[in-house]
Amino acid sequence: MKIKDIGEFKLIERLAGSVSAGEGTIVGIGDDAAVLGPSASGMLTLFTADMLVEGRHFDLAEVSPYRVGWKALGCSLSDIAAMGGLPRAAVVSLGAPGELELEFCAELYRGIGDLARRFGCGIVGGDTVGSPHGLIVSVALLGEVEKEKLVLRSGAERGDELWVTGRLGGSGSGRHLDFTPRVEEARYIIESFPVKAMMDISDGLANDLHRMAAASGVGVLIDGERVPVGGEAPGGSSGKDSLGRALYDGEDFELLFACVPSRTAPELEREFGKRFDCGVTRIGRVVDREKGVTISEAGTERPLEEGGFRHFG
Amino acid sequence: MKIKDIGEFKLIERLAGSVSAGEGTIVGIGDDAAVLGPSASGMLTLFTADMLVEGRHFDLAEVSPYRVGWKALGCSLSDIAAMGGLPRAAVVSLGAPGELELEFCAELYRGIGDLARRFGCGIVGGDTVGSPHGLIVSVALLGEVEKEKLVLRSGAERGDELWVTGRLGGSGSGRHLDFTPRVEEARYIIESFPVKAMMDISDGLANDLHRMAAASGVGVLIDGERVPVGGEAPGGSSGKDSLGRALYDGEDFELLFACVPSRTAPELEREFGKRFDCGVTRIGRVVDREKGVTISEAGTERPLEEGGFRHFG
Repeated sequence: MKIKDIGEFKLIERLAGSVSAGEGTIVGIGDDAAVLGPSASGMLTLFTADMLVEGRHFDLAEVSPYRVGWKALGCSLSDIAAMGGLPRAAVVSLGAPGELELEFCAELYRGIGDLARRFGCGIVGGDTVGSPHGLIVSVALLGEVEKEKLVLRSGAERGDELWVTGRLGGSGSGRHLDFTPRVEEARYIIESFPVKAMMDISDGLANDLHRMAAASGVGVLIDGERVPVGGEAPGGSSGKDSLGRALYDGEDFELLFACVPSRTAPELEREFGKRFDCGVTRIGRVVDREKGVTISEAGTERPLEEGGFRHFG
Repeated sequence: MKIKDIGEFKLIERLAGSVSAGEGTIVGIGDDAAVLGPSASGMLTLFTADMLVEGRHFDLAEVSPYRVGWKALGCSLSDIAAMGGLPRAAVVSLGAPGELELEFCAELYRGIGDLARRFGCGIVGGDTVGSPHGLIVSVALLGEVEKEKLVLRSGAERGDELWVTGRLGGSGSGRHLDFTPRVEEARYIIESFPVKAMMDISDGLANDLHRMAAASGVGVLIDGERVPVGGEAPGGSSGKDSLGRALYDGEDFELLFACVPSRTAPELEREFGKRFDCGVTRIGRVVDREKGVTISEAGTERPLEEGGFRHFG
């Protein structure tokens, strides 16, 4: 059955069945807006959004709707994680051709619903509209964070160490769809490391180092030999070596953070590795702004250029 | 200059300049997520989203980007109004072809920013992505409402009166783009009328009466001669009379509400008319569920069918 055969209201009813409203939700899908209970006192609200467009972010000949749904919510969960927060509730807007099979939409929402439940995040509303050209999935996510745990990307200072979670590069081989947002890892990092700045690595380490450096008004120097390269080479990756992929592939959805140097760092690293499979690695340090963003390889330093994933190219 | 010539980060910088973060926003556009200060105690959070797709909701040969931006935010503001709430902050996701002129995007954000400022709503983040086929504007809006002022569509009971704001029908002539969301009117209604249920009229009065009746578990009877018809016939409106347009055109973005019958109703109506140009009209009443959704015209009652605007048709 196609979605145009059942119309918007029946479609919403069916999709609502595969997701949960989450704790603290007073009114979920079905009214003009969702209603959430008040936050605990002292909590700040986090708010982010991501949009995936067919033909740009995914090709339905290669990717299941379940994975598209998973990724659509995953990108926003990764943003909330990077602020040190916990997700609360999401709204999902779907643009879909009328010819689309109902079963396809159900699978997409199953992917969203499974990931949402894993992190205690409600799906509380959204919009469903016809789209003349392909699928669009747009997610907005509300989270919350204790005032004292909030971490911005702008807090790095000269002398801080730079760390990343997981392994970088090669996301094109499929990991950019199936990643697990580092929500739990981020909370642990904030509670254990003396963190001063954090962000998620979505545009490639090189670009995101530039973002953090600019936001914090600092320079950074990373050690090319310490960057945790990983993942297989994606089919289309032409000639980039593994470090190049780690720097420029993008869509790693790992965490980049700056923290005060500490003698207990090796211990923290070990303890993190025991709790989380992805591990954590110190890759460099924060330097004076004038030094820019640089990488050292085999004893020589060179500027680390921006590049890689182009959003409108 | 085209947006592909400046890339995502410069584009965001430029667009951010035409909107305001709003009061109570700690971190706006630029970090992984926006950060908002805590709500006042006792406030509930409202959350809604709307998506507009080129070729479905608007045709750029006929409509300026300013009006598209205005409408994109306006739909969500109308949802928050219908719950009795006040808007707080929005995130805007834009899908755009790389060939799009930068000036076009700037105009679109100017439309969003102007409407947002009018209602004290911050624009605090979002996403900008490439779109292979036409423009997509997706808005998610956060609002808040005092617990005692929250109104759902599900609270109507037998004996209640049914009222609407403004005039209905003919939105296709342009009003569906330029409407003013009834945020102030809704607040006044909640504070003055003994309101029990409310929603916005976005899918046409006939459909939305069915929605309210179903959500409240009641029937409704409206007086066809009292429905405030208005607006000119849109070019493409074939053969529908003005009542037909009022019932089925959709996208009126007026309010439909149910309230306890009151001897002071004529006074309330007058007082409302003094404050707000749109006026308010009593159009019928809530009846037993078994009676369904009916309309009386020239002394005879007939079932009021669903129909009109099709989302996937």
